[in-house]
Amino acid sequence: MSNAHRVAMLGTGLIGDFYTMTLHGQRGLDRVQVVYSRSEERGAAFRERWGVPESTTSIEEAVGHPEVDTVVVGLPNHMHLEAVEAAAGAGKAVLVTKPLARSAAEARRILEVVEGAGVFGGYLEDLVYTPKTLKALAKTRSGAIGDVLWVRSRETHPGPHSAWFWDAGQAGGGAIVDLGCHCIEIVRSFAGKGNRPVEVMCWADTLVHPIEAEDNAIGLIRFESGAVGQFEVSWTFRGGMDLRDEVAGTEGTIWLNHFLRTGFEMFATGAGDGYVAEKAESATGWQFPVGDEVVELGYVDMFTDMFNAMEEGREPAETLYDGYVVNAVMDACYRSASTRGWAPVELDWRGGQTPRVGRPERTEDGLVVIKEEQLPDGRRKLILKDPGSGAFVDRVLG
Amino acid sequence: MSNAHRVAMLGTGLIGDFYTMTLHGQRGLDRVQVVYSRSEERGAAFRERWGVPESTTSIEEAVGHPEVDTVVVGLPNHMHLEAVEAAAGAGKAVLVTKPLARSAAEARRILEVVEGAGVFGGYLEDLVYTPKTLKALAKTRSGAIGDVLWVRSRETHPGPHSAWFWDAGQAGGGAIVDLGCHCIEIVRSFAGKGNRPVEVMCWADTLVHPIEAEDNAIGLIRFESGAVGQFEVSWTFRGGMDLRDEVAGTEGTIWLNHFLRTGFEMFATGAGDGYVAEKAESATGWQFPVGDEVVELGYVDMFTDMFNAMEEGREPAETLYDGYVVNAVMDACYRSASTRGWAPVELDWRGGQTPRVGRPERTEDGLVVIKEEQLPDGRRKLILKDPGSGAFVDRVLG
Amino acid sequence: MSNAHRVAMLGTGLIGDFYTMTLHGQRGLDRVQVVYSRSEERGAAFRERWGVPESTTSIEEAVGHPEVDTVVVGLPNHMHLEAVEAAAGAGKAVLVTKPLARSAAEARRILEVVEGAGVFGGYLEDLVYTPKTLKALAKTRSGAIGDVLWVRSRETHPGPHSAWFWDAGQAGGGAIVDLGCHCIEIVRSFAGKGNRPVEVMCWADTLVHPIEAEDNAIGLIRFESGAVGQFEVSWTFRGGMDLRDEVAGTEGTIWLNHFLRTGFEMFATGAGDGYVAEKAESATGWQFPVGDEVVELGYVDMFTDMFNAMEEGREPAETLYDGYVVNAVMDACYRSASTRGWAPVELDWRGGQTPRVGRPERTEDGLVVIKEEQLPDGRRKLILKDPGSGAFVDRVLG
Amino acid sequence: MSNAHRVAMLGTGLIGDFYTMTLHGQRGLDRVQVVYSRSEERGAAFRERWGVPESTTSIEEAVGHPEVDTVVVGLPNHMHLEAVEAAAGAGKAVLVTKPLARSAAEARRILEVVEGAGVFGGYLEDLVYTPKTLKALAKTRSGAIGDVLWVRSRETHPGPHSAWFWDAGQAGGGAIVDLGCHCIEIVRSFAGKGNRPVEVMCWADTLVHPIEAEDNAIGLIRFESGAVGQFEVSWTFRGGMDLRDEVAGTEGTIWLNHFLRTGFEMFATGAGDGYVAEKAESATGWQFPVGDEVVELGYVDMFTDMFNAMEEGREPAETLYDGYVVNAVMDACYRSASTRGWAPVELDWRGGQTPRVGRPERTEDGLVVIKEEQLPDGRRKLILKDPGSGAFVDRVLG
Repeated sequence: MSNAHRVAMLGTGLIGDFYTMTLHGQRGLDRVQVVYSRSEERGAAFRERWGVPESTTSIEEAVGHPEVDTVVVGLPNHMHLEAVEAAAGAGKAVLVTKPLARSAAEARRILEVVEGAGVFGGYLEDLVYTPKTLKALAKTRSGAIGDVLWVRSRETHPGPHSAWFWDAGQAGGGAIVDLGCHCIEIVRSFAGKGNRPVEVMCWADTLVHPIEAEDNAIGLIRFESGAVGQFEVSWTFRGGMDLRDEVAGTEGTIWLNHFLRTGFEMFATGAGDGYVAEKAESATGWQFPVGDEVVELGYVDMFTDMFNAMEEGREPAETLYDGYVVNAVMDACYRSASTRGWAPVELDWRGGQTPRVGRPERTEDGLVVIKEEQLPDGRRKLILKDPGSGAFVDRVLG
Repeated sequence: MSNAHRVAMLGTGLIGDFYTMTLHGQRGLDRVQVVYSRSEERGAAFRERWGVPESTTSIEEAVGHPEVDTVVVGLPNHMHLEAVEAAAGAGKAVLVTKPLARSAAEARRILEVVEGAGVFGGYLEDLVYTPKTLKALAKTRSGAIGDVLWVRSRETHPGPHSAWFWDAGQAGGGAIVDLGCHCIEIVRSFAGKGNRPVEVMCWADTLVHPIEAEDNAIGLIRFESGAVGQFEVSWTFRGGMDLRDEVAGTEGTIWLNHFLRTGFEMFATGAGDGYVAEKAESATGWQFPVGDEVVELGYVDMFTDMFNAMEEGREPAETLYDGYVVNAVMDACYRSASTRGWAPVELDWRGGQTPRVGRPERTEDGLVVIKEEQLPDGRRKLILKDPGSGAFVDRVLG
Repeated sequence: MSNAHRVAMLGTGLIGDFYTMTLHGQRGLDRVQVVYSRSEERGAAFRERWGVPESTTSIEEAVGHPEVDTVVVGLPNHMHLEAVEAAAGAGKAVLVTKPLARSAAEARRILEVVEGAGVFGGYLEDLVYTPKTLKALAKTRSGAIGDVLWVRSRETHPGPHSAWFWDAGQAGGGAIVDLGCHCIEIVRSFAGKGNRPVEVMCWADTLVHPIEAEDNAIGLIRFESGAVGQFEVSWTFRGGMDLRDEVAGTEGTIWLNHFLRTGFEMFATGAGDGYVAEKAESATGWQFPVGDEVVELGYVDMFTDMFNAMEEGREPAETLYDGYVVNAVMDACYRSASTRGWAPVELDWRGGQTPRVGRPERTEDGLVVIKEEQLPDGRRKLILKDPGSGAFVDRVLG
Repeated sequence: MSNAHRVAMLGTGLIGDFYTMTLHGQRGLDRVQVVYSRSEERGAAFRERWGVPESTTSIEEAVGHPEVDTVVVGLPNHMHLEAVEAAAGAGKAVLVTKPLARSAAEARRILEVVEGAGVFGGYLEDLVYTPKTLKALAKTRSGAIGDVLWVRSRETHPGPHSAWFWDAGQAGGGAIVDLGCHCIEIVRSFAGKGNRPVEVMCWADTLVHPIEAEDNAIGLIRFESGAVGQFEVSWTFRGGMDLRDEVAGTEGTIWLNHFLRTGFEMFATGAGDGYVAEKAESATGWQFPVGDEVVELGYVDMFTDMFNAMEEGREPAETLYDGYVVNAVMDACYRSASTRGWAPVELDWRGGQTPRVGRPERTEDGLVVIKEEQLPDGRRKLILKDPGSGAFVDRVLG
């Protein structure tokens, strides 16, 4: 039986809502005890909304609350370091929302603060924890799809909901920092956490919105094994939130769709009774809801892993070090976008080494088998290569 | 903050596993304290499997356990009444798996026992609680799809996993009792719980398996409002478990796919390392896993509602009375299959009355508007009916 | 190399358009030479629209045209018999749109006229000819899914586009006659054309539109083999045209989606330049177009089969006899809806006999094997039945 | 009414089969008159297979055949130039399979030969002609999705069927040349044929097969408008052939799936009667056939456009110049893969200029509107930017 945790929630924005909805949802042991907001009014509204006992406008007071053992940092990116310092200083476990920081240097500092204080740290990268992703990762790690060759992770929507996201100064960047951080960690999880991200190639542009930060970007990440990750992020996508991952292995394929096509399809004319009052454009026509968002987006499994890890004295699946690696990859992306070529990922690598992907070579009569296929008439056809001459030949077997 | 409940789990089969996996999963408050099995060995294995403190071969001992406040009945159908009597006799809340009983008469008896004892009763119909279904029901009840006209609920797979299911004596029937009970309650939930199921028409046959019970059935349920429900059940389906619901309303449509197409698609050659040992036929080719089964099948939200209802002194969304209605509909199905015509649903109706479905009639120049559509050139076309002559005419508007 | 055919097209409605778009589409040999319409104006417009050389308001003139060898009947249902009599009287091949007639008696008469005249006859049931259906039928007939147990065919949309469809007198019925005729022939094609439809059970109701004909119906068709067909038709569906077929066999499953989910998905805000002029409600939000409608709805393969059959001196896949059988099934549907029980399909059966579906029985140690499955640990589990006692037992094999 | 064309088919491989299946399929006017193969035996087999009157082992004889007006080049890439020279020399229309050549220089030479001879030339890029693509392009060009920002085209499968494809010398490259040529032209078609491809960034690697050519590649193409194309090609994909396109515009989204998810889904145990003889691994489990491959892959509409263009004295949608542009883009891809940076596309540009993508800027009280969204309570929220200070603010409107 687990111990009940008491949380200080820092931040009352969308992410604070999602986290608290998760913690207070279903029949959960753990509760938010106190919420911190810069604004007294927003803190009070949050308290009311989620049945949280206390609110405060002081980070120190929140993290120092005697019943609180865990601090959740759900603040804008530029406030993460300061909040982590406060929490670690108070000796509390500290869980930080994504991205960990605005740069690898800042992430590194956060890591040092937490490791220096000897408190538990976790990186709240929810999308690695979606139930589909967890099962797909388990399959991948069991070898079901062979060596991973390519991972695509895509997150696109029409843009974030709060002003600070759009300000590169506060956020540390645009769509890459907001959305790419998810994709990069998903890519890493499938390619292997111990598989070093060697270099990146990134295109970023501001195509639609009147901002300085990039509203569209595509990045390629080359791993030590030869595997390639690909992220696509956009703040200009139309049609909802597109959240898909694809993995290609030597022996199989995985496709995950987290949002727009999950088996829930609905058409509404908009003329239904209950809809007259809120006749939103988006409430008519074909719609694709998800069942339970906090489950499908990974929040439930994420907090379960975090609290269980604390109790079991182990690391969570997503550590602050992972957050640092993600920041290092993003830093390389911005460098690549600027130098217009591949940029090395500069980081203090704690993982090991990963061998090159591939399949064992097979020969037939001294010729290398390139491909074997079955013809419609049942015969087998080989495509062979003569290792001496380099010539390729077709051979149909009796 | 909720109170933690302690459960006596009666039964160690697949459903007992699913229930306990749910209760002990994530960061849950509630726990199974004691498990009952007819077999000491199975009880011990279950205790081990799920970290349950105690097991017993005595129902009385299980339900009478002083720390237990809730009894979950996960036994074969023919043992439900006896188990409920024991639990109610001990003054405990009693939650009964689906179907409630083998017949409406037996279900009625269960209802009387629980109501007589004044204890809390709940019907563990999980598929009404899937996150997708809950959201779709909320949309439907808000009027988003207008009046519900038709509901299809389909559950088919290659047949159940334990011998007793196949024995009509112990089970009370075949695929209708095993699977149709889910579909009927899903249909009722969309058509309206207060919408009386008036009569049913059912086809049932034993097409493949060498058994007496039906292995395939289709049923139509006519509701007081005119809406029609349709269930399709089969123990001979190939390709996995097909679990889909479709709802048609005057103003919209809902399609739910709970299992085979939920946004998780995987192909495996079977040659992956980890797969060599367990080279199951089903582990190769295209596969369609679900993320977290206990979430997607509704178990999590079901227990949340049950325990919250107990604490809030309200009825759960699925009551034992609902289970009784389902049994009454199934009884009518068997009568219909035998009489080869519509059979009335005989039940003690506690719901109210429901008006006929429809849309308000609209006229244009004294003619009834049958349909209005837009032509490719932008003009509007009306199909009209002269209420006097009964003649139909096309009219294109400027 | 085929001969080019010259066609007299009777009728200028939606179906005449689709037929001519097909014949004149791509690089086709065959052409419409003359079109007949009751209205000179509509005839002229049609001529213009499709590059047809001649139009006439006389059926006799159209069918008697010296260059015409084939008459296509694309008229309202109540005019089919008269048109067929004219075409057969002129000694021309006659191809009749669906449904063949308003009743089996009328269809019978059409059949006699054509067979009496000794001319080629074909039934223009396009949906049996969709490329997906043709391939699925070939797979089914090759045994790929074993014995067919169940076929569902669904066609629903918000209602037809011309006034006469809504008038039961001219049409011979409502949604059953308009849409059910397609579904019934699809069901027959999968269940086996030689598999006698023995009896039907049908529910029909007028739920939404202010008309006398049914706007919703569901029918079950029991075949001699024990297989069951199921059709669902509606003129009240919201969200487009839902056109799906599902087939369950002892060894496999087929799902076909012809319209709303065919791999073409599009979202539009409606603000695109080109859309300002035609700002139709249906042109915004998620949409699901089909690629080439005349291909996807089967028109291309249908006419290819018809003309090739003429040249090869064989019957087409869809004969006028098939149209008659469909009418006989629909007649039984209306009787069943009225008697509220199963109604026999009364017809002059030209097919043979079909054995009962099933799988060969298998025993193990004298016990009947009900089911065999693989446990997660790799062991095999049998569910067995003692043929003497009737008892069911589970047995796990080492 | 069109004229019938008589074709000399050069090549008897898979592509020659597909082309002839298309030309001789349905009720087509046009026929293959003579087939050329280097092997007398393969020529004879092809003649037999497709009912072609004549075969020859001389290209000169084939292209010079007096009844032939059109030459289709379906030979390995390194033979295209020679074949085009022969056909143009004979004064025949010449249609060349994809890719046009092994390099832009070779493609340029082909273009000059055809333009010099003044004969009709067409580029047989079938995937731009799929019915879905044609309709999606029409929608895009009508403005339905606004300005195109991003196009993804993906073609992956387990590798080609003939030895010469695997030999970079004969083919001119690996997966980029084999598959990327399709993707690049699809991308161009959506981004705008007149939208100059300015530069490319490409990753290519040989991850699995023991060959020199790349078996996996990803390319980004930056167009003059700012739009970015993305192609993904692989010869190592598992699970069939993955053929998908995605387009993002300022006002909409298009997703096309041409092969693995087109609305045809089938499961087979492999135990069906007809399957015993050909018990292929791929004939069991879930499968995703396409209806009519030559339609769905664009062959039918492609030849229709080619022959119609000849008759109408216009250019086809896919010209040899388009083939040259594709080769120029592919050349840049190989350069980029080698220089590890963006590489300019070097070509003789015949198109015009394309303005930058975007949406008109909108202000509110002198502040720039970044985003407008509707809150759940119906109020509208603006995210605004102060053009002076650069500060971002949230504003909720009453």
